[in-house]
Amino acid sequence: MPACLVQGASRGIGLEFCMYLLRGVPNITVIATCRNPGGATDLRALQAKNPSNLHIIPLDVIDESSIKQAANEVKQHNGGGVDLLINCAGILHPSGRGETSLRDVSSQKGTGAFGQHAQNKQTHAAVMANISAKVGSITDNGLGGWYSYRMSKCALNMATKNLSIELGRGRNKVICVSLHPGTVDTELSRPYHKNVPSEKLFSTERSVQYLMDIINGLTMQHTGKFYTWDGKEMLF
Amino acid sequence: MPACLVQGASRGIGLEFCMYLLRGVPNITVIATCRNPGGATDLRALQAKNPSNLHIIPLDVIDESSIKQAANEVKQHNGGGVDLLINCAGILHPSGRGETSLRDVSSQKGTGAFGQHAQNKQTHAAVMANISAKVGSITDNGLGGWYSYRMSKCALNMATKNLSIELGRGRNKVICVSLHPGTVDTELSRPYHKNVPSEKLFSTERSVQYLMDIINGLTMQHTGKFYTWDGKEMLF
Repeated sequence: MPACLVQGASRGIGLEFCMYLLRGVPNITVIATCRNPGGATDLRALQAKNPSNLHIIPLDVIDESSIKQAANEVKQHNGGGVDLLINCAGILHPSGRGETSLRDVSSQKGTGAFGQHAQNKQTHAAVMANISAKVGSITDNGLGGWYSYRMSKCALNMATKNLSIELGRGRNKVICVSLHPGTVDTELSRPYHKNVPSEKLFSTERSVQYLMDIINGLTMQHTGKFYTWDGKEMLF
Repeated sequence: MPACLVQGASRGIGLEFCMYLLRGVPNITVIATCRNPGGATDLRALQAKNPSNLHIIPLDVIDESSIKQAANEVKQHNGGGVDLLINCAGILHPSGRGETSLRDVSSQKGTGAFGQHAQNKQTHAAVMANISAKVGSITDNGLGGWYSYRMSKCALNMATKNLSIELGRGRNKVICVSLHPGTVDTELSRPYHKNVPSEKLFSTERSVQYLMDIINGLTMQHTGKFYTWDGKEMLF
């Protein structure tokens, strides 16, 4: 049975990924993590509707013990295999600790339920999609500003590339990509969208549909790269 | 009189930049910053030989009050004008504070003493050279590893690009570049150089000569870009 871990699932794009997967993928196990499950009303409502398919685990990406505990809980579901890892919340922790922990999670053998394989041959075990942003492209940066946001997404893209190399070795390869979800209308981002024309402002449903279309088409040839919602490759 | 601020000047490449500038540029004012001037024996010896041209200022890049104090001290030398800013130590602080402080320093009007100008016209007021590294290129990353180092240099390159946009406006433009110094034999890096062939391992003198050749040839057309010691442009 396919399993997906959505990190940062309490709202916005992460929550929408959970809904999409539960609705669209038969027999899926969705493991949803967020900092404070008690306050994640929408996620808990979704859990009430999908009691056997959705598991909520507390995870704070800047707390190592919380990462370890979440990794242990993941192992108890679905034999520990993760086919798809969606990283929505925060940035990768730029230290040896965060790196190691992420590797711990992603090296759990998946069944390759997402992405495309060669005929009669499984070419990868899992997919890792890091939700990045177009502003993380140095080459594409024409306006400046947003220093911290740009620098963290740029660093995330580097982590994706590093992980693609590390997890592209051996038998259980993981396709790692950075994805730009478009300009998405969420509670968090709404104050910044005053000047975005409505046709360029995506609902979370629309954005996740685009991103899942990309994820479903991924092969090992795409690993390490950075794609926008429409499937175009971004320069770093 | 030309003025240069070398941030991270107590040893290695930063110290070498101070020596190069004091030796090669007549009447230069070099402002050298480091965390602990008391412990910076070599820098203090250099100061003893150049008492009127070299000023040592304590600066810890992660301490905002220290940055403010250093900026005030810079203003007392040479009318506050800085023609060349060499950032060697640490990474840019990825927060609004560090960003603002760096802008405070770099917006001091320089005289354009470094880099190339159009005939009869001063095209820039100053040069900012951020000492980056080739491992900060996502495109060029073929081996992986070194997560934190790669991510921080990649983020630094994004900051260079952002600063080039912000400081490329108005009358006192600043050329901002990221520079890869090559593999340089310093105390800090020596343990990692066991497998580097000797012709690829530069002394600090050699590296700084290469970097100054690049700096001396810079125009506004180069701003925001990333160059290796041999003047080749790196993809991000």
